[in-house]
Amino acid sequence: MRWSTIDEGAMSPAPAGPAIAPLAVALGDPAGIGPEIVARAWAARAAHGLRPFFAVGDIRSIEAVWDGPIARIFDPAEAATHFADALPLIQVEDAGPIVPGEPNMAGARCSLDALELAVGLARSGVAGGLVTGPVSKAQLYSIGFNHPGQTEFVAERCGVSRDNVVMMLAGPTLRAVPITTHVALRDVARLLSVDLIVAKARTTERGLIRNFGIERPRLAMAGFNPHAGESGALGREEIDIIAPALELLRAEGMNIIGPLAADTMFHPRARAEYDAALCLYHDQALIPLKTLHFDEGVNMTLGLPIVRTAPDHGTAFAIAGKNKAEPGAMIAAIALAGSCAETRCQPS
Amino acid sequence: MRWSTIDEGAMSPAPAGPAIAPLAVALGDPAGIGPEIVARAWAARAAHGLRPFFAVGDIRSIEAVWDGPIARIFDPAEAATHFADALPLIQVEDAGPIVPGEPNMAGARCSLDALELAVGLARSGVAGGLVTGPVSKAQLYSIGFNHPGQTEFVAERCGVSRDNVVMMLAGPTLRAVPITTHVALRDVARLLSVDLIVAKARTTERGLIRNFGIERPRLAMAGFNPHAGESGALGREEIDIIAPALELLRAEGMNIIGPLAADTMFHPRARAEYDAALCLYHDQALIPLKTLHFDEGVNMTLGLPIVRTAPDHGTAFAIAGKNKAEPGAMIAAIALAGSCAETRCQPS
Repeated sequence: MRWSTIDEGAMSPAPAGPAIAPLAVALGDPAGIGPEIVARAWAARAAHGLRPFFAVGDIRSIEAVWDGPIARIFDPAEAATHFADALPLIQVEDAGPIVPGEPNMAGARCSLDALELAVGLARSGVAGGLVTGPVSKAQLYSIGFNHPGQTEFVAERCGVSRDNVVMMLAGPTLRAVPITTHVALRDVARLLSVDLIVAKARTTERGLIRNFGIERPRLAMAGFNPHAGESGALGREEIDIIAPALELLRAEGMNIIGPLAADTMFHPRARAEYDAALCLYHDQALIPLKTLHFDEGVNMTLGLPIVRTAPDHGTAFAIAGKNKAEPGAMIAAIALAGSCAETRCQPS
Repeated sequence: MRWSTIDEGAMSPAPAGPAIAPLAVALGDPAGIGPEIVARAWAARAAHGLRPFFAVGDIRSIEAVWDGPIARIFDPAEAATHFADALPLIQVEDAGPIVPGEPNMAGARCSLDALELAVGLARSGVAGGLVTGPVSKAQLYSIGFNHPGQTEFVAERCGVSRDNVVMMLAGPTLRAVPITTHVALRDVARLLSVDLIVAKARTTERGLIRNFGIERPRLAMAGFNPHAGESGALGREEIDIIAPALELLRAEGMNIIGPLAADTMFHPRARAEYDAALCLYHDQALIPLKTLHFDEGVNMTLGLPIVRTAPDHGTAFAIAGKNKAEPGAMIAAIALAGSCAETRCQPS
């Protein structure tokens, strides 16, 4: 298995390799668990060998839930100096009254401001990469946000069509890409096409090379139907759509196996055979990922000019401010963003 | 978690409780891995505390791949006497030439004869339960077998409609029921109905009480769409079909939660909250089960008058006779059949 990039990022107490610009971490909704888990990730920076990062958001959202040291900075370049002693933070617009667990419109504006600034800093290169805390889509929609989620917003700000980015879920022993994402399951079959599969596979392959330093990525394509359709007896998507797409990709030289029966491709011996699994629908990718790595799943966007990761969970308003939130996924998201940023800096 | 029944069955070196009649283990296709893994399960009987069982099939299919002691018997009652020293076996019709890995029609007839006899012995009560080895459906179809699989055949021989039995996959930390099984995924949405879900949930609840001794089973119902549909934004099956079914079941007194987002219901803390997960389609149940328990998954049929289990894998002709087959799932299937048979014998 070639998980060295992830593991090193998460484990090495003193990161080696070229120095990268500090990472920008948008706090997400100030009333959610974002501020809390970012602060706790900073507190755990040494144990996890986290590269320097700075928070972007309202300082009060952290102060409300954490009493550690915060250093307000005005330029990302200051982050490295303070990182050893305090959590560096760039303040955005005041979020109005902040009560953990009680989101409001001012908080939504704050989370959007933080996201926008953090993207801009990563885009310009003064931040080495972007990590995004959880936002409330319902709150964002109420202030006129018209993207399906943060990923599409980030893609637009980076000048990339949302159709050309890929959502990849990464845990310590599995990377999985859902080729369709937030659509009703009954609609998935008619959304699948050779073009879609080919485009997502290409972006995934490039993303693995660029962010993980895998020279020749090994991809595994899931079947759509039980037992991958059993030669057409249990559905024809494998024959009509998936196999032609794989043929095309292999003709280009891609190392891709499948279509595999989805139920037998995620046990340990099967996972050892590939670097990323391509799945056809949301739960086909997310069930194995979260079954294995619920507290450490990272959502990564491939196909962008910048590194972008996020913890694979929501705002969890119900437990915000109660010191119950698990920071594991945020720590993993920051660690992965750092190691990917470093890989991108390597002379290739 | 209440896995004590499974664990005791698999672990206790000296089974306690009432003596049960020996289990009948049909060997499956003589050219598959069935004979080999049954023999190796017998060899591991002490380590796993397996209750007495006897094989049903052609003795030559075992002799071709294993050189341990076999005791040919003519009545299940003889099994217990021999079990400590040899693998008891009831011979069925000669299977013709046997070459591991090379199935033929005579082998298919042999596997069907063995299945039929083993079912009959379990049905009459002289066998305490039924364990079925893997068969080749393609071979069986070639000799006129017209059931979708062994499960439906067993149901018919037990006088139960195939619609009234439930396939449950069981591993050490998860039990999962696929409400639809071997159908194309694009057809699943229109096969779902309130009646179907209610019937499968009732059979599952009764099965958990009867076979596992769980007084008041806790069931968890998966959603169909990503995030269980997000209140209809990502699909309406949760609102139109699943929720009404759950309402009906709760009105009957059933302890059932859901619909849950399928991707977040299989991590360890989530699994601790229920005794069995009800899933809507094959891979929704089988992906988490095989991701977690690939080498020890047991396929159990609920709703029958007899105990019936099977290892959750196929004939594996490619590795038959090469001493590569993992006996873990067969051992788990025999252990589970024994513990369920014992539970059924307890005065209730």
